[in-house]
Amino acid sequence: MRPILFLSDFGSSEYPGICRAVMAAVAPEARVIDLTHHVPAFDVAAGALAALDAAPYAPPGAVWLAVVDPGVGGRRRAVVLRTGRGDLMVGPDNGLLLPAAAALGGVRGAWSLENPAYRLARLSSTFHGRDLFAPAAAHLARGVPPEAMGPELEAAGLEPAPLPEPRLEAGAEPRLRAAVVLFDPFGSARLRAPARMLGELGLVPGGTVRLEAGGRSWRLPVGRTYADVPEGAPLILEDSSGDILVAVHRGSAREQLGLERGQEVEIRRGGV
Amino acid sequence: MRPILFLSDFGSSEYPGICRAVMAAVAPEARVIDLTHHVPAFDVAAGALAALDAAPYAPPGAVWLAVVDPGVGGRRRAVVLRTGRGDLMVGPDNGLLLPAAAALGGVRGAWSLENPAYRLARLSSTFHGRDLFAPAAAHLARGVPPEAMGPELEAAGLEPAPLPEPRLEAGAEPRLRAAVVLFDPFGSARLRAPARMLGELGLVPGGTVRLEAGGRSWRLPVGRTYADVPEGAPLILEDSSGDILVAVHRGSAREQLGLERGQEVEIRRGGV
Amino acid sequence: MRPILFLSDFGSSEYPGICRAVMAAVAPEARVIDLTHHVPAFDVAAGALAALDAAPYAPPGAVWLAVVDPGVGGRRRAVVLRTGRGDLMVGPDNGLLLPAAAALGGVRGAWSLENPAYRLARLSSTFHGRDLFAPAAAHLARGVPPEAMGPELEAAGLEPAPLPEPRLEAGAEPRLRAAVVLFDPFGSARLRAPARMLGELGLVPGGTVRLEAGGRSWRLPVGRTYADVPEGAPLILEDSSGDILVAVHRGSAREQLGLERGQEVEIRRGGV
Repeated sequence: MRPILFLSDFGSSEYPGICRAVMAAVAPEARVIDLTHHVPAFDVAAGALAALDAAPYAPPGAVWLAVVDPGVGGRRRAVVLRTGRGDLMVGPDNGLLLPAAAALGGVRGAWSLENPAYRLARLSSTFHGRDLFAPAAAHLARGVPPEAMGPELEAAGLEPAPLPEPRLEAGAEPRLRAAVVLFDPFGSARLRAPARMLGELGLVPGGTVRLEAGGRSWRLPVGRTYADVPEGAPLILEDSSGDILVAVHRGSAREQLGLERGQEVEIRRGGV
Repeated sequence: MRPILFLSDFGSSEYPGICRAVMAAVAPEARVIDLTHHVPAFDVAAGALAALDAAPYAPPGAVWLAVVDPGVGGRRRAVVLRTGRGDLMVGPDNGLLLPAAAALGGVRGAWSLENPAYRLARLSSTFHGRDLFAPAAAHLARGVPPEAMGPELEAAGLEPAPLPEPRLEAGAEPRLRAAVVLFDPFGSARLRAPARMLGELGLVPGGTVRLEAGGRSWRLPVGRTYADVPEGAPLILEDSSGDILVAVHRGSAREQLGLERGQEVEIRRGGV
Repeated sequence: MRPILFLSDFGSSEYPGICRAVMAAVAPEARVIDLTHHVPAFDVAAGALAALDAAPYAPPGAVWLAVVDPGVGGRRRAVVLRTGRGDLMVGPDNGLLLPAAAALGGVRGAWSLENPAYRLARLSSTFHGRDLFAPAAAHLARGVPPEAMGPELEAAGLEPAPLPEPRLEAGAEPRLRAAVVLFDPFGSARLRAPARMLGELGLVPGGTVRLEAGGRSWRLPVGRTYADVPEGAPLILEDSSGDILVAVHRGSAREQLGLERGQEVEIRRGGV
């Protein structure tokens, strides 16, 4: 029995619980591991990142159930993907699954969830997590092959993930432009840019950066860990996913620097 | 071993975790499925609706543990109900369980939780979830029959659910009055009224309604799914539970229309 | 297979889910019981209290995984403790585990988590929950003995818990000074003082207290349960953990009395 990794933007509602009930009715023995249900509502990019962050730690061969689905009831397709490593990923075809799938060996197969045997008898137009995705995940967990779920799709035709890519700009004063894609539970701002890009700007722990965001500017030390600066002081460091993090030691960068989700920030060497 | 479906208004506290620990000590093999712990505090009506929404999807024969219990420590009774389908539902006798029980075949037996063998040794006056309901649920999950829990009660004597019922008013301009009973995770307003009542007003998808609430009024299209209107536009539709939903496509009806929980709204045909 | 009790300040992020994925990869059969992930960020005292409250109800012999770790990446040690009852408690050496360990028979052994065989291959400087604590807990759950985790430590050398202790002051008008350490899900204020201290002031249910906090003062009845006062009225009572609780019947003491976490309050007899 494959375990099921469950991620959604259902928040503090009973929706994740109803999906768990659906899965328990189909596959009573399947273990459900909640990744998070607090992806910001409708935010496919944040959901894709949460899945990507979890991917290196997931049990191989798991079934992923990911539902951040602003297009529910519209024309978007519902899919199951098979990764190079053998994981099965269920969700809407809106890019939510692709970064994690790429980290798990790439998409080696994709099928449209069309077989009525593996959904609930009545398909609502607003809650496909319950009616379509959860039953499919539970049937896959108990061994139904993805080929049985519906017609095969071209991997190249899947919708790409809506993730803003970082831009490294050369010149006399080279700089990195990247977006704040989410805040961690402590209010630290996660940039969509790998920490190695700091190295490409010549920045290493012990140096300083100039950070610009929303018309304001700060000089921040580059650290290895929060404790490299005094409590309450901001810094920039590599986060636990390998991306750039703007943080405050035992504080909140979101509140202290006034950063916002989706905001573009600019980083260059900090000068004197 | 019956699975346990757990619902409460304990929110983000350690109370659900402590109840889980209690159940794991009594019935280590029982699977606990969290429905939600974010029922608004003390809101028996919202909790009853959350349970009702989950009922059609629950594994048959499960034990339900439902704790929204503003009368804890007072004179309200603690009960276990057996449904027509064979489910066992544990909770306070305040109406919380009755709508879901009705959906599962009706109450076919009711017992008062009085047997000290199936509660903790010390009963606090403020946390019966831990001391009384969770142990009872765990003992039921491992096979103790509800008859062993205490004296049988008359089903007719159970407290009714405090759910506001919708009213359909005939006349030259027939109208429906219903209450906003909860908001879904996306801020859509759930009315306590089945969507078929729209049909009884002559309203079908493609038509328009006049919605009045709090002294304000809107003309809204009746849709089948969010995508029937542009992003940011409001509409009225049947939600995934079969009730009427006032929503905004990729937005929040709560914020955009200023609706409030408990508020009565009025719906009639939208005219030109 | 020992069950794992998991507590953190990771909030509504995917961090608890990533830790669950790590544990499922190491010990697929181990049951994980979430105590709470909503300890206020960095608040070791509140985390220690949440663990202490759960201790009497935990299955004997469980593995505890507790991560409230403001010193992550710094010099604090990572430890596993064995209690007198045989529980194994994993977490940072910052006092988080000690009150619960004391309630479970005391610390009978302590080891530093240094064996690289029981952590992930790469140790980040910001997320030891994922890289260090969760893998250790999962290996302990499948039977690895704590002695294998690293060198033994002196129990006397462990960091104490940062819990503010209550002070009972004698005199013509004896009084109790105690801190508000947390709010329960309903906004009731939990004091760090056992309810028996009320008795030492000559206060019993039916009497009244004078409560002072933040320059303001109230006369409150001492009750046994919320329903001893009308709805909306405040009272003081013994909470489900045996400590003093300042509450409002079906309301929020936090909002109504304006109490704050960390605030010191003073209690004396209420007079006429």
